[in-house]
Amino acid sequence: MSTTQAIALLTDFGLKDGYGGIMKGAIATINPHLTVIDITHELPPQNIAAARFCLMNAYPYFPPGTVYVAVVDPGVGSQRRGVAIQFDRGYLVGPDNGLFSGVLSLSEPIAAVMLTNPDYWRVSDPSTTFHGRDIFAPVGAHLASGVPLEKLGLLIDPESLVKLPLDSLEITDNQIIGSIQYIDYFGNLITNISGNLLKQKDWTVMVNHQTIKKGLTYSDVELGELITLIGSHGWVEIAVNGGNAQKKLQVDWGEQVSLHPRVV
Amino acid sequence: MSTTQAIALLTDFGLKDGYGGIMKGAIATINPHLTVIDITHELPPQNIAAARFCLMNAYPYFPPGTVYVAVVDPGVGSQRRGVAIQFDRGYLVGPDNGLFSGVLSLSEPIAAVMLTNPDYWRVSDPSTTFHGRDIFAPVGAHLASGVPLEKLGLLIDPESLVKLPLDSLEITDNQIIGSIQYIDYFGNLITNISGNLLKQKDWTVMVNHQTIKKGLTYSDVELGELITLIGSHGWVEIAVNGGNAQKKLQVDWGEQVSLHPRVV
Amino acid sequence: MSTTQAIALLTDFGLKDGYGGIMKGAIATINPHLTVIDITHELPPQNIAAARFCLMNAYPYFPPGTVYVAVVDPGVGSQRRGVAIQFDRGYLVGPDNGLFSGVLSLSEPIAAVMLTNPDYWRVSDPSTTFHGRDIFAPVGAHLASGVPLEKLGLLIDPESLVKLPLDSLEITDNQIIGSIQYIDYFGNLITNISGNLLKQKDWTVMVNHQTIKKGLTYSDVELGELITLIGSHGWVEIAVNGGNAQKKLQVDWGEQVSLHPRVV
Repeated sequence: MSTTQAIALLTDFGLKDGYGGIMKGAIATINPHLTVIDITHELPPQNIAAARFCLMNAYPYFPPGTVYVAVVDPGVGSQRRGVAIQFDRGYLVGPDNGLFSGVLSLSEPIAAVMLTNPDYWRVSDPSTTFHGRDIFAPVGAHLASGVPLEKLGLLIDPESLVKLPLDSLEITDNQIIGSIQYIDYFGNLITNISGNLLKQKDWTVMVNHQTIKKGLTYSDVELGELITLIGSHGWVEIAVNGGNAQKKLQVDWGEQVSLHPRVV
Repeated sequence: MSTTQAIALLTDFGLKDGYGGIMKGAIATINPHLTVIDITHELPPQNIAAARFCLMNAYPYFPPGTVYVAVVDPGVGSQRRGVAIQFDRGYLVGPDNGLFSGVLSLSEPIAAVMLTNPDYWRVSDPSTTFHGRDIFAPVGAHLASGVPLEKLGLLIDPESLVKLPLDSLEITDNQIIGSIQYIDYFGNLITNISGNLLKQKDWTVMVNHQTIKKGLTYSDVELGELITLIGSHGWVEIAVNGGNAQKKLQVDWGEQVSLHPRVV
Repeated sequence: MSTTQAIALLTDFGLKDGYGGIMKGAIATINPHLTVIDITHELPPQNIAAARFCLMNAYPYFPPGTVYVAVVDPGVGSQRRGVAIQFDRGYLVGPDNGLFSGVLSLSEPIAAVMLTNPDYWRVSDPSTTFHGRDIFAPVGAHLASGVPLEKLGLLIDPESLVKLPLDSLEITDNQIIGSIQYIDYFGNLITNISGNLLKQKDWTVMVNHQTIKKGLTYSDVELGELITLIGSHGWVEIAVNGGNAQKKLQVDWGEQVSLHPRVV
């Protein structure tokens, strides 16, 4: 392969113990020429919905052909499947527990395999608790090094992959009722209402009995004030200029949000 | 370009959500052969003074020609300028809000541009809230790949760049009155008093009514004891051997420090 | 050198201030073609035992010939030695304070030097508080670039290296009494009892008056339940499925653990 291939990692392993570094060691052992990029290792532990959001939000900005190794894996060592999925932007590798649903809601899967071929694992008797090290990182390194998908295991129907859908929206002429699907490091509240529903429109949102006006960027309101806007990820977001919307509104993941559009 | 070029990143995006990883994806999409080094993504949110300190402290240790992409950007999407600056050690890219003042107090700027040419952005209609992804990282990748500075936008007078000076010192024969400009992860208090003022001298400092003696390294005092020394960054620092000076002294950023030099 | 050489970093510097990034800048200044992998920068401050565990746990998964630069260095600037050690899997570089004991309990040292030759430091007058930047990272970069070990300083007897042994085990026919050597990000309790002592056996452990049954993986018990198993690192571990064993059992590093084996 003449170009540098990229592997992107996304886990809930934290950065304290070196588990993410160990995955990178396992990758470098197979192919030291790959470009390895951390998306995050600090997802909330075992929160598959957070993983789904962060991966869906990140993948459009990586080079075509990137291999995404994602490991939020509460069922490690159980009967849940390990999978590799080819899609139009590259490959997804990890447990089949729904964490790829976000990406696959935007990009069609082309083919998928269950990871049954130990020739591409680190060892043929992997640990029962760390498939990131023993299966997923090695498989990702082999894929990024040119091994064809179908060598990695049994072909499966992409339709059989576990789906973890977002909360459904309730859309009427007067309002859209959705919820908070993710809260980021800054305390910004990211809803499950797509900005695509609101082109050319003005709106307000109501969260925890508070009505919030729309703007274009954080500094459109005074320091400490609430604002709603379409975030850089394309979803309706609620933020505080220079502050933390989660703390100000005292809300958590899943909280209801109602949006009231007005044609400008 | 025959040599590997380096890009160094410094942001307040945190490591939870993958925003820093997305910047690296955007860089790899433009040029996968660049060496990308994280200085930090965990600056205190929207704290430009912290960014100024950390970048000033870090850049002398990077290869000549490195491109520093720094994004602490409370005014993103407002009228504040995006800039790229050539200086004797490489290039600085980010918002023009003073975060480069520390570097530029030590190294003269050679030339500067306002980032007005969307040919070197990720997209011509960048998001209003994430210029790190859509403008600064792509511009940095192009600079590190050999694009000349003047192609990136309008040349501006480096004198016009926003300055964020340190608190000024009050220097008399008997004492230097300064303040704490940064507190690090270990709780070490880093003042705005340069070690260059103290060559060949002994001194004590007084902080929050406590007098602290000078040493050369942390272990010059007993475990748990306070010490003042010239830190690895060249500033007068107050620390506790094996402990946390911020907690012990109950002080915060900006606290007054008085230093009493004595010729040895 | 025709192959990419890897340097792995492990420190307690945290990720806020850029100290780890500065080490990477110092490495890239010497050789920008090295592959630099972070094991962790978030070890508990000045906790040499934690560093010993994490490095011992990580090194088997890195490419042969990797240079491990490890800096948890409460005695920086004092009389403690800086060392570089050749062993069968690569090189170890850092302070001689016992943090390499874990690796060296599994892999024999081949040769060791005290780092006395400033030709391979960043500067000949290093700071008294940041040898990671001024000595250890540069020495690691030179080693990974092909400089022979013996050029770095005086050869020393590997037997003279500081040892930091694990708590000793008390083994009888009926039980093994050990202790908790490490607690990870998930709150998993990792004991100093090697899984090698338990091949083909069943067992229970008792911690803080609670008896816990053995399984193979976390999901062998219900959500929220305690389990003991041989962790991915090879040590007996105590965990909670989907939860935090440290919080559930209210225990800390060093707590006694008694294990009761039964032949299956």
